[in-house]
Amino acid sequence: MKVLLADKAGFCFGVKRAINTAFEAASRGRVYCLGPLIHNPQEVGRLRDAGVETIDDIDRLQPGDSLIIRSHGVPPDVLVRAQERGLKIIDLTCPFVSKAQKHAELMKQEQYQVVVVGEKHHPEVRSILGYAGDEGVAVESPDEVEELKLKSRVGVVAQTTQSYGNFSGIVLKLLRFSKELKVFNTICNSTAERQEAARTLARAADVVLVVGGRNSANTTRLASVCRQEGKPTHHIEVADEIRPEWITGAGTVGVTAGASTPDWIVRSVLDRLRELGGG
Amino acid sequence: MKVLLADKAGFCFGVKRAINTAFEAASRGRVYCLGPLIHNPQEVGRLRDAGVETIDDIDRLQPGDSLIIRSHGVPPDVLVRAQERGLKIIDLTCPFVSKAQKHAELMKQEQYQVVVVGEKHHPEVRSILGYAGDEGVAVESPDEVEELKLKSRVGVVAQTTQSYGNFSGIVLKLLRFSKELKVFNTICNSTAERQEAARTLARAADVVLVVGGRNSANTTRLASVCRQEGKPTHHIEVADEIRPEWITGAGTVGVTAGASTPDWIVRSVLDRLRELGGG
Repeated sequence: MKVLLADKAGFCFGVKRAINTAFEAASRGRVYCLGPLIHNPQEVGRLRDAGVETIDDIDRLQPGDSLIIRSHGVPPDVLVRAQERGLKIIDLTCPFVSKAQKHAELMKQEQYQVVVVGEKHHPEVRSILGYAGDEGVAVESPDEVEELKLKSRVGVVAQTTQSYGNFSGIVLKLLRFSKELKVFNTICNSTAERQEAARTLARAADVVLVVGGRNSANTTRLASVCRQEGKPTHHIEVADEIRPEWITGAGTVGVTAGASTPDWIVRSVLDRLRELGGG
Repeated sequence: MKVLLADKAGFCFGVKRAINTAFEAASRGRVYCLGPLIHNPQEVGRLRDAGVETIDDIDRLQPGDSLIIRSHGVPPDVLVRAQERGLKIIDLTCPFVSKAQKHAELMKQEQYQVVVVGEKHHPEVRSILGYAGDEGVAVESPDEVEELKLKSRVGVVAQTTQSYGNFSGIVLKLLRFSKELKVFNTICNSTAERQEAARTLARAADVVLVVGGRNSANTTRLASVCRQEGKPTHHIEVADEIRPEWITGAGTVGVTAGASTPDWIVRSVLDRLRELGGG
């Protein structure tokens, strides 16, 4: 059995920066993070052990406490509250998410109705929507467009981890219902590259293991990309979940990992496959 | 044999305005028109008889001469030359074309590379391109997009008579190759309505006659819309061209006409069909 690792897999630039800065900050004393820093429970566990405490609400923090804004960003009112509370803010919003927030804010000022292509309840989408004003709306699929009451001037940004196919499908629908459409393709390169690499991997493999948090949107999307190629695909968080029967008889096992999946987990998956006969 | 006339056919608002104003101006003395006022040789003949002379170049005109700018508009340098020459300008640029010109000019000022979706050599497209600056480019089909060297910020307008399908196909391709895309759907309602009515007509008819100038882009497009519905379609300029064998055995003959086709030609086509047994 051959084991293939996708060309592009694992931590992206924004996540790497967030993790490194968080560990560094924690080495100087306790820090708080609003929501898990990344959507990977195992790595969040390591961060907790290092002194990064995940909190749900900033109200119980004291002036001078250090607060991490995670890579998904937060709506502007949360930032204001944190500042008013006198917290030391460590802003680790991914620069690509910041860009989407800025485009949303500018388009709102230019009187566009802002559409954010992405999952309504994902923290990144909620953070971008925070900059989009009262008329801003999140759209998950092309079908939803017909239900919307749209202004004639529509401005579009994307959750950075969207698939291009869904994004362009929604833009095409919006084009039909608007007179003026301004579109920023804010899907980040890492996302596009990882999805493309996953597609290539799935074509070459008999079965695919996609490694990453079950709450990770981009990891989940990698799994659907592989399934679209018609290959049996398993989304796992850790090596222990691999069932030997998944890979029995497989000539080639493909492995890929989301942008929030740390290397040490990917390595342990590769080790486990080696134990099961992979090379 | 039944004869069906399309719900929306013939002169659009912009053409009607241009024709009426031209006849009115000619009643007060000779007027010149830069290029044929509309793409309909028969109506242009009537205009000539009334005193509207079609010219190719303004250089032989004298100060004080009256110059009609036709509904397709002209690039701004032509307007400037006409003003410098002291001509009396009667600007009959269709308001929808003016809108496309203005959007092109503003986007050029905002540093977008302007793409005009339309036929490269059509006077309307050339008039809009005149406002789009040196980087402006006309694109006729989605396939051409890959050949273009595009900036990351692209602004799009459409020839007012484009089909929505071609327009959206080109926008979709541009979306793939740009980071920021601003799109004004400047296809005019008359165009969309006439194409939709032609489609409905073709579905109900056994054979379709599309009446209008052979040099008329929008008439030619009505004919392709009808052909796409799988019905035998004949593009004619005048009633005399109808060949009886086209309609032999047809239960229903559909008739439609371009936005530059005058009523009197449509009526003569209907009269001729009546002579041939239509009702």
